[in-house]
Amino acid sequence: MTLINRREVTVEWGDCDPAGIVFYPRYFAMFDTSTAALFAAALGYKKFEMLSRFGIIGIPMVDTGAKFLHPSRFGDVITIESHIAGFRRTSFNVQHRVLREETLAIEAHETRVWAGRDPETPERIKGVAIPDEVKEAFSR
Amino acid sequence: MTLINRREVTVEWGDCDPAGIVFYPRYFAMFDTSTAALFAAALGYKKFEMLSRFGIIGIPMVDTGAKFLHPSRFGDVITIESHIAGFRRTSFNVQHRVLREETLAIEAHETRVWAGRDPETPERIKGVAIPDEVKEAFSR
Amino acid sequence: MTLINRREVTVEWGDCDPAGIVFYPRYFAMFDTSTAALFAAALGYKKFEMLSRFGIIGIPMVDTGAKFLHPSRFGDVITIESHIAGFRRTSFNVQHRVLREETLAIEAHETRVWAGRDPETPERIKGVAIPDEVKEAFSR
Amino acid sequence: MTLINRREVTVEWGDCDPAGIVFYPRYFAMFDTSTAALFAAALGYKKFEMLSRFGIIGIPMVDTGAKFLHPSRFGDVITIESHIAGFRRTSFNVQHRVLREETLAIEAHETRVWAGRDPETPERIKGVAIPDEVKEAFSR
Repeated sequence: MTLINRREVTVEWGDCDPAGIVFYPRYFAMFDTSTAALFAAALGYKKFEMLSRFGIIGIPMVDTGAKFLHPSRFGDVITIESHIAGFRRTSFNVQHRVLREETLAIEAHETRVWAGRDPETPERIKGVAIPDEVKEAFSR
Repeated sequence: MTLINRREVTVEWGDCDPAGIVFYPRYFAMFDTSTAALFAAALGYKKFEMLSRFGIIGIPMVDTGAKFLHPSRFGDVITIESHIAGFRRTSFNVQHRVLREETLAIEAHETRVWAGRDPETPERIKGVAIPDEVKEAFSR
Repeated sequence: MTLINRREVTVEWGDCDPAGIVFYPRYFAMFDTSTAALFAAALGYKKFEMLSRFGIIGIPMVDTGAKFLHPSRFGDVITIESHIAGFRRTSFNVQHRVLREETLAIEAHETRVWAGRDPETPERIKGVAIPDEVKEAFSR
Repeated sequence: MTLINRREVTVEWGDCDPAGIVFYPRYFAMFDTSTAALFAAALGYKKFEMLSRFGIIGIPMVDTGAKFLHPSRFGDVITIESHIAGFRRTSFNVQHRVLREETLAIEAHETRVWAGRDPETPERIKGVAIPDEVKEAFSR
């Protein structure tokens, strides 16, 4: 069974642009938080602890995209539904759906890397194997 | 001949995350500025004037995506190259390439709408025909 | 009796800088949301409705400041306590206190204007009288 | 003689809120960049190199405030003038003035710390003595 994490986000004044709708880069920041929340829901502890427990520096983005079907406005409450679309050895896919009431407002996808420091050149970031313990937390 | 607009952006402290690399939603804000700069380069006046001259409320995003090939760090100077990949009646495509020195760091694409207020329901946004004058400004 | 509104905010990855602590401009965005939440708590409806009901364009900032006593880190949960420190005819003061567990982390103050469009030059913003109904909502 | 650093900033679409004026937390991000630019102008190298050369983790804010005298709008070009108002042993004051054409639009002040890791508890940040070399770079 697929774990789907849902969270409600209120669109705030500062999320919106002079046209009165969400400035779209703000959605990507919301999705970043949703992906962190999805892992926290699966693992039972926060991203902060996930990074230190597995010795990684983050889960940086390598490919993302979004289709904006309906704009949202300041004051709207949206629901972001997120799930893992697949794990590979060092990377994984996430999908987000944004709903406003019953309407699908945005569809987005992400490919991220489970990333550590390269031991030989510590300023470089490189993909490392995703622990089985992490993958299994999503298939319970 | 295709108009390519280039602008240099310095990655600032506040653009970066705890891993020391650009928090990727920030790139989308940079691309939004680059698309505005591309139109300004073609038309010879700023987006602010473009909106009031053509009576539109903005050029909202309907589809965007980016591939992040190499991370950039605080202090890096990146070049964003932007061009129109095609105009349709009410929408258009933009492509951005981010270069750090000679390295291609990001490839991104956008589909945006030339958007006005729906005269019957002013709180609704709808695509309107892109003026020929705008399209021609890119083909000089 | 003074109405104090409290809300919990989780410090997210994208709120933090390369030193691993909150990039301080993010706190001001949080305070802007807290002030909106304070009015919503007093009035019983959201800022969106407040603006349309009273015909104002916003409550722009004229003076703000903050003392940062303790940094917060990605993963921390902070509580923002907000209250009105005083109403004048067209402007008002807000105070925010940020607590992390029992520790006072930030003290901030704001002076904002209840702002409408100047009827003679609509692109100008000007202070208008705060309705008694709004002031009274805080003194119940 | 006091070193005053000036930089021009164009107010972008994404800097502005539904009232069409700059969302004020964005100014604090601009000031953070201006303070980095001020040190770079004095020292002749970027903040990135300053941090690594002096072994500090940043120059975090301890107290800041701003008076907003005139709003700026999307498309406006503003000038930010910044100078050091005083150095102490481990902290310093910065002042920023924002001008739009000849009009003073914002006055802001900052107190920041020259901050290193506490050697005994590396997750703690503490003030360390500002090197004479840094102070002298501003009094040439």
